[in-house]
Amino acid sequence: MDMGEPISIILLESALELVPRELWKHPAVLKNARRRGKKPGKTLLDVSLHYHAMRKLKDREKRGRPDIVHISLLNALESPLNKEGYLRIYIHTYPGHIIFVKPETRIPRNYNRFVGLMEQLLIHGKVPPDSDDPLLYVKTMTISDLLEKINKNGIILLREQGEKEKPENIVKYAIENNYAIGIGGFPHGDYSEEIIDMSKAEFSIYNKPLTTWITVSRVIVGAENLFKII
Amino acid sequence: MDMGEPISIILLESALELVPRELWKHPAVLKNARRRGKKPGKTLLDVSLHYHAMRKLKDREKRGRPDIVHISLLNALESPLNKEGYLRIYIHTYPGHIIFVKPETRIPRNYNRFVGLMEQLLIHGKVPPDSDDPLLYVKTMTISDLLEKINKNGIILLREQGEKEKPENIVKYAIENNYAIGIGGFPHGDYSEEIIDMSKAEFSIYNKPLTTWITVSRVIVGAENLFKII
Repeated sequence: MDMGEPISIILLESALELVPRELWKHPAVLKNARRRGKKPGKTLLDVSLHYHAMRKLKDREKRGRPDIVHISLLNALESPLNKEGYLRIYIHTYPGHIIFVKPETRIPRNYNRFVGLMEQLLIHGKVPPDSDDPLLYVKTMTISDLLEKINKNGIILLREQGEKEKPENIVKYAIENNYAIGIGGFPHGDYSEEIIDMSKAEFSIYNKPLTTWITVSRVIVGAENLFKII
Repeated sequence: MDMGEPISIILLESALELVPRELWKHPAVLKNARRRGKKPGKTLLDVSLHYHAMRKLKDREKRGRPDIVHISLLNALESPLNKEGYLRIYIHTYPGHIIFVKPETRIPRNYNRFVGLMEQLLIHGKVPPDSDDPLLYVKTMTISDLLEKINKNGIILLREQGEKEKPENIVKYAIENNYAIGIGGFPHGDYSEEIIDMSKAEFSIYNKPLTTWITVSRVIVGAENLFKII
């Protein structure tokens, strides 16, 4: 297999965002923000803290799970595939931001430190905040804009309803067509119509639902096998 | 490949323990325990909170990293291999406890909830504390006792200095000889002499160090390939 190009994984509609304005005055949100000496709008939405506050929030079953991005990034960035330089990972978030991640970024292992880092990133737009060449930065852009920026011809989706295929073959198909590989970064529910409409193909790797970080890991191992890295 | 028996993974000398007695009076330990309304000896040792307190602690570079067990368990229990019933995972800890994990256990995704659960487990010996058939329970026992209890002929180690081999072949070797597969559950340093002396063979899957959760994941995928699960 041609090892010229890294593969690109995009976590789609990921459940990572600052507490939205409509929840700023909710007691649970205020209490948690105060305890940390922060304004509500400068803290991360987290269902383990804001469960009751999120009761009436639109699409609540898809939001407030930063742990999904955390564990997926720890699986992706520590992989042999990434250490060999053959992985690019992008985080598309529910509110429509794209987080760009340098492959050499060392994501905090501790969840609470990760939360602090993501807050800093979403507030200042980059980390470190004063760097000209940041490890992480955020842009508000569409997935189409992202695909164009990273020179991809389109995106394929990992989805429960997709055609059953081995991860290695999914990666091969993505490379041959110069497609990015999209994986849902949310806990429940399905992709938005917009994303389903734009996808070039849909694949599934297992006959039961899998968590995001397991799917990320299996796709990466597919590429490691294909490239004979491990 | 014969799919009669699940494979057994043991996380060895894992960096998961309650704060040891010699640190109970350290200001950072007291502060964190008070903030959570707990006694110091009933909180988990965590280098992200207790870095300074751990300065003079024996083997400090191997201790206080419950996140390693957390992420490894999330990767193990959500894997297709486990969903198909072909994985048993045991946590051997630095102080010498063994945690038994029912395959159907749903580990909290949120780190802070995981910490609370592990504290409950190490204090009461099982979770739920009043169950006759708990999801998780702890015994103080040696690795030799564990191997005997689970009817294994011995243990092989994943170790940087081991013989380079594909995960699939390592799993095959373990099955053919009825060995458990040992993976270090600590962030730095090496296994204790005692563990190295008892191991039947040592293997490595990559030419650079890997974090525990990546090694766990690659061994599990090796078994998934071998058993044609994905």
